[in-house]
Amino acid sequence: MSQKEVILSIKVLIKDNAGNYLILRRSQRSKGNPGKWDLPGGKINDGEGYVEAVDREVKEETGLNVVLKTAMGTAHRETATKRIVYLILEGEIDSGKIKLSEEHDAFAWAGPNELVSYDFPVIFNKVLEGLGDNKAESNRS
Amino acid sequence: MSQKEVILSIKVLIKDNAGNYLILRRSQRSKGNPGKWDLPGGKINDGEGYVEAVDREVKEETGLNVVLKTAMGTAHRETATKRIVYLILEGEIDSGKIKLSEEHDAFAWAGPNELVSYDFPVIFNKVLEGLGDNKAESNRS
Repeated sequence: MSQKEVILSIKVLIKDNAGNYLILRRSQRSKGNPGKWDLPGGKINDGEGYVEAVDREVKEETGLNVVLKTAMGTAHRETATKRIVYLILEGEIDSGKIKLSEEHDAFAWAGPNELVSYDFPVIFNKVLEGLGDNKAESNRS
Repeated sequence: MSQKEVILSIKVLIKDNAGNYLILRRSQRSKGNPGKWDLPGGKINDGEGYVEAVDREVKEETGLNVVLKTAMGTAHRETATKRIVYLILEGEIDSGKIKLSEEHDAFAWAGPNELVSYDFPVIFNKVLEGLGDNKAESNRS
């Protein structure tokens, strides 16, 4: 049986003391989803330590050191050859100051109910809607 | 800042052609949750390849080779020193015949609506409820 490679991507909802989440806007020259909003984190190479990888990617993209907390949800998408499984974790800031990489050109702190008003790739909608107060109205299909 | 170690555990909902899921009952001599129902899979050591690790653990616990498909949800629990994040994936059987390890003493194939009638650790309830038809009634807190 031919099978698509499964790739794990860990994204982090970094929460500040006011309960807002750090979101990043992808650069216009980004290969994937230019101009869309995004969460820090990224693909874990198979065989790579996932904690170390997430810490490194978050640090590169945000300048922050974070402490990973709980699981917030999942998302997935498929390409012709791959299945990408997203694990979305909540994290808190341990240290650092925000400094973006070239991958993103803006950031915002968005409250749980505000997240859905930003233009994220649709695969993240379910998780982001689930953070707000209107959980019952979100599409859980 | 002291911080708890984060451990990723990947569990697999193996679905058969009839749409039922393979569940396993933990042995009475199991250290954790003896007699409770369980899903195949387990902890990924940091630095270990997660696809390889899941394949190996599922094979050990079920005798089956599976193809991993989509993400179905997450769960988490904390101990005094650790945060365990569960990523629940759906998988399909590639090859093999069911053969349990010593860790489990029974298995069942349960339909999406039947899963909640089995005694799983409560942390899995939200994901399992979400698979059935009564999604709107599940507790999403």
